[in-house]
Amino acid sequence: MTAAHTTVEPARPLVPVLAVVGVGLIGGSFAAALRASGAVGKVLGVGRSATSLSTARELGIIDEVATLERAGREADLIFLATPVGAIAPMLAALKPCLRDSTLITDAGSTKADVVAAAREALGERIRQFIPGHPIAGAEKTGPEAADPALYRHRNVVLTPLPENSGGDKAALTKIWERCGAKVIVMEPEAHDAAMASVSHVPHFLSSVFMWQVATAQDSDLRMRLAGSGFRDFTRIAAGSPEVWRDIFLTNRPAILAELQEVKAALARAELALQDADGPDLQDFLERAALARRFWGSRSGLS
Amino acid sequence: MTAAHTTVEPARPLVPVLAVVGVGLIGGSFAAALRASGAVGKVLGVGRSATSLSTARELGIIDEVATLERAGREADLIFLATPVGAIAPMLAALKPCLRDSTLITDAGSTKADVVAAAREALGERIRQFIPGHPIAGAEKTGPEAADPALYRHRNVVLTPLPENSGGDKAALTKIWERCGAKVIVMEPEAHDAAMASVSHVPHFLSSVFMWQVATAQDSDLRMRLAGSGFRDFTRIAAGSPEVWRDIFLTNRPAILAELQEVKAALARAELALQDADGPDLQDFLERAALARRFWGSRSGLS
Repeated sequence: MTAAHTTVEPARPLVPVLAVVGVGLIGGSFAAALRASGAVGKVLGVGRSATSLSTARELGIIDEVATLERAGREADLIFLATPVGAIAPMLAALKPCLRDSTLITDAGSTKADVVAAAREALGERIRQFIPGHPIAGAEKTGPEAADPALYRHRNVVLTPLPENSGGDKAALTKIWERCGAKVIVMEPEAHDAAMASVSHVPHFLSSVFMWQVATAQDSDLRMRLAGSGFRDFTRIAAGSPEVWRDIFLTNRPAILAELQEVKAALARAELALQDADGPDLQDFLERAALARRFWGSRSGLS
Repeated sequence: MTAAHTTVEPARPLVPVLAVVGVGLIGGSFAAALRASGAVGKVLGVGRSATSLSTARELGIIDEVATLERAGREADLIFLATPVGAIAPMLAALKPCLRDSTLITDAGSTKADVVAAAREALGERIRQFIPGHPIAGAEKTGPEAADPALYRHRNVVLTPLPENSGGDKAALTKIWERCGAKVIVMEPEAHDAAMASVSHVPHFLSSVFMWQVATAQDSDLRMRLAGSGFRDFTRIAAGSPEVWRDIFLTNRPAILAELQEVKAALARAELALQDADGPDLQDFLERAALARRFWGSRSGLS
């Protein structure tokens, strides 16, 4: 990485050549954030959609469209912002053309599965890969949705491997901080369990609910009466089906385990409703409301 | 009602004296909207919290604090914006002091239960009560949250009774339209079934989920990693426990029936996840995403 260079030559950017694989919301916002903070020299864009790449170039998010091979040869940092299922094939394709000094990171929403696949794909070059997951997103997709402020004040989890060097870990932390993010270091499995709870299960439930309402016989009438509560509860269900299918498949055991917990809680609340038990209903509603209000005041997100 | 008067004396407001019972978000916003549109003369505020009433008066939402009895004697329109469980006792207390020309409506989130209780409480004066439900709200509560624009472009369901006069129904429709709302007329039971689906079940699920996360052993870590999806999915769980306890209790059969449908859909999606069935997962995610995006583009709410 180039952290050492920046102290010697201050004019040299933190990341002389950045390659972003997947120039949508996540990858495009990363490139835009680094460019806005003056941390990047040239940005190469890699992807399968010619339209997205062309839009990203028109918007100034990337400077040039490149192949994966060129990214491996030229980039100082490669940011993989593809669906989780595409990360391992990308790493396998990158391996033969990687320079020794190239650092790779990703934005995959699951980490244990990605780490296992990365070890297989990269072999001894696994030291060049630091797994990451920015906790940020929106229901919008594509390069048009890219926003240099997307990661500001957001958490980014890194799950470094024993093979990663201290210098690379420090450099990647600094890069994320230049995007305005706060870095949290965790084990991959702890990350996956926590994300199953606060991200994957809510998405699963929101999508199941939306699907159930949409397939009801009187769905038109129902949806006419849907208000702001429905809007908020179902917003995540509009997210990319492909991205979320991959997340569900790669974090399957943790999600299935967490769903059991949620169903047990649901059964308890349903029993209170069946029994028309007002105090019990109010008790669980109060605990939920207090916890949500406390979270809202601390998270800076609501 | 005063609809006839306004054509004869244009200087006379649509509602010369409005009484709002419950001066929080819903009642306060109704008063503020009518005042902003010049549709109201004097506003009386009725409630059990001296603090809320005093705040509402300081904010100019109400002109005077009044007893329920005075509201019954003086008001042309009484708007009941209390928790659903308090509507019947209010109507019973109002009955002995009601003028013949006073119209009463409510903002209760359930209607069949309210209609039954209103018939019992009002007897022959049931003709003066037109049940209503504005589909609007926010997680904030209290008179400070009152907003004259809360009902703009929102749907308001009225479930008129056979005893209501055509003149009264037209007058109440006009009043809601002055708040910027669109009036939909429905049967109480159809309203309750639709609301169970698109409002009550989402609130139940969001609260159950929030409660489950908050009571987990590692809830602190989980909540640090919670992002914008969590924020949206759990926003409604911050709502008033008392209000929602009453809604759940008064619309219990419809909610329990709808919960069975959601659980059946969940079981089907869970099976696809257990089987790691990518195409099946993607299929349900796609249907949900398309339906949500279509709703968002039509509803004007997202």
